[in-house]
Amino acid sequence: MPLPPEPFPAALERRKARWETFGDYRYLRLTDDFRGLPKGTLAWQERLIPGYPRIGRIFRLEQGLAQQFAGPFWMEEKIDGFNIRIFRAGDELLALSRGGYVCPFATDRVPDFIPQTLFTAHPDLVICAELAGPDNPYTQGGPSFVSEDVQLFVFDMMRLGQAGFLPQAEKQALCAAFNLPVPRVFGRFSPTDWRQVLTLVEELDATGREGAVFKEDAPLGHRTKYVTAWSGVYDIAVRADDTVELPGDFFTGRILRMALYLDEVGRERDAGLERELGRAFLAGLGRSVERFKRDGRVAHDFRCRFRRRKNALAFMEHLRAILGHTHIAQRRLEEEGGYWVLEFEKEVPKLTGLLHQLFRGVSILD
Amino acid sequence: MPLPPEPFPAALERRKARWETFGDYRYLRLTDDFRGLPKGTLAWQERLIPGYPRIGRIFRLEQGLAQQFAGPFWMEEKIDGFNIRIFRAGDELLALSRGGYVCPFATDRVPDFIPQTLFTAHPDLVICAELAGPDNPYTQGGPSFVSEDVQLFVFDMMRLGQAGFLPQAEKQALCAAFNLPVPRVFGRFSPTDWRQVLTLVEELDATGREGAVFKEDAPLGHRTKYVTAWSGVYDIAVRADDTVELPGDFFTGRILRMALYLDEVGRERDAGLERELGRAFLAGLGRSVERFKRDGRVAHDFRCRFRRRKNALAFMEHLRAILGHTHIAQRRLEEEGGYWVLEFEKEVPKLTGLLHQLFRGVSILD
Repeated sequence: MPLPPEPFPAALERRKARWETFGDYRYLRLTDDFRGLPKGTLAWQERLIPGYPRIGRIFRLEQGLAQQFAGPFWMEEKIDGFNIRIFRAGDELLALSRGGYVCPFATDRVPDFIPQTLFTAHPDLVICAELAGPDNPYTQGGPSFVSEDVQLFVFDMMRLGQAGFLPQAEKQALCAAFNLPVPRVFGRFSPTDWRQVLTLVEELDATGREGAVFKEDAPLGHRTKYVTAWSGVYDIAVRADDTVELPGDFFTGRILRMALYLDEVGRERDAGLERELGRAFLAGLGRSVERFKRDGRVAHDFRCRFRRRKNALAFMEHLRAILGHTHIAQRRLEEEGGYWVLEFEKEVPKLTGLLHQLFRGVSILD
Repeated sequence: MPLPPEPFPAALERRKARWETFGDYRYLRLTDDFRGLPKGTLAWQERLIPGYPRIGRIFRLEQGLAQQFAGPFWMEEKIDGFNIRIFRAGDELLALSRGGYVCPFATDRVPDFIPQTLFTAHPDLVICAELAGPDNPYTQGGPSFVSEDVQLFVFDMMRLGQAGFLPQAEKQALCAAFNLPVPRVFGRFSPTDWRQVLTLVEELDATGREGAVFKEDAPLGHRTKYVTAWSGVYDIAVRADDTVELPGDFFTGRILRMALYLDEVGRERDAGLERELGRAFLAGLGRSVERFKRDGRVAHDFRCRFRRRKNALAFMEHLRAILGHTHIAQRRLEEEGGYWVLEFEKEVPKLTGLLHQLFRGVSILD
């Protein structure tokens, strides 16, 4: 085996990298940011696959765009799914999760969306994409416009061993040439165009979309994101059962975003949004209480489709490994419409424990 | 000076007690729970004044009352104000805050509500009461039925140097004889009466009241409390500006209470409550954003009345001492209608800092 690329030897020594396996492959994964490389960066044999960088969020468009960008930037739709990187290993395509694991689910489904010919022509390409939809095994919910299964949205490209992203024009040309699915690209703007950007965000908000990502068009160009008020309500609605699990500022941060959004668009009050926000919290938790009374525990249900049965089994094993003590129960794995449909349940342990206490009549000092 | 009563010598040694002064008085205050005595317990010369115990909260009436009480208990209305203990020192009445400080505000106002003759007849009495209303210097808001200034509500009595509370009958007789203001007492119930209790709580909820306290009638009898859904919404509405200041579970805990309440009363959805909850969050934070844009900072406004000017000044000094670095600004101190009206502002530093960043266009990794 060749020596791992820099800075992996040092990262291993400092316990910032770990060996992982996938089938017959062994690879190294950064478990923390290290020397300018994000967590999730891989050493795949002698090549480095950069992690996908974290993108900061602005809460005000006018001041945020002016502060973040000195010149023009691209505006693309932000998709609410999970981030993957796709690359070719030997003659198969593999998909990495944000954290840098080869994901058996994403790897199984990638051929449904990406033609092999792309990698025949560009063997060192790394595709950065969002896999999004209700039938995904990681997150509750998904974009309002994906009604079943998952869809893939390609939003960035890199090359093996190279830091930074391909230029916007090159990415767009490749997407067009290979007919890759992409999120909406709204165009190129300057910070002074913020009113135009705000109008686009208001349209996104009105149509139940998550928000936008703004990208300076340079390999290591600056990026930032901005989300709609709708997205805040949606996040709370799908994750209200996690109330006790998540840090409280998961929720309060979203409400602050909404308040600043309403202020920036000049809406003093929005009775519809108020109602939706209150409902998101109460209906979400009400669902958990119902479930607890029925099953004696709170759990999230997941359902996803695989092309191959062995990938579904590998995925369950992967999930158990990364989740540690959280209880996962496989409910179903059956062939249906040409796919293997996997259904499983993931327990919400803290809320389950708290509801156990409260339904026993325990008194809490708070 | 006589030796402080047990366990203060040991508490001083362990740094669980501190010397405080009020005018010419010096006294000792427990700064933590210590040997079964709650934080806020005082050594007043050679006498011990027990702290007011913390009372746990149940989230379900049926199971909670059954679990908490083996026999009968009294149900009293819970008042949303701040807890004080009133006692006689020499020929004046002093009022202690929950933490055990002599409070210049409460001490100033007590003669408006409590006749001196009570302490002439019962010099060793300690009155436990809630001071509640919009014009109080500690908390935002107050009970819906106190429209201005503050009112006092006597809910417990103790005797200097003795642990535990007076029996319900003795307390009620004293309150009647001296015409003391009291919260509503709903009567004596057993755990099996939980449906009757729930009906009373629903009336409290419908009329914008905070909730109830349940008390076993024995000197050290068990106590617990239960609050209405209305109270959760109200707390969020008045404290939404503190979103960033408070631990997130201040909010999520209240929403969980509401969800369990709706479940227990059998309301599957309550569109009114949903709207009020969403509005509580968004209107509260919207107010902060407005204020920040106007003043460059977020602050809470307080207003309260004193009988004596020197008590108002002593109160400001007291507040600065207990709040440490939080910025307090006196805005007004003027005679009006026989009182000295004090107005001051208390900065909300974390939200102020965060809004400064966000309005500068900073991008946040979250």
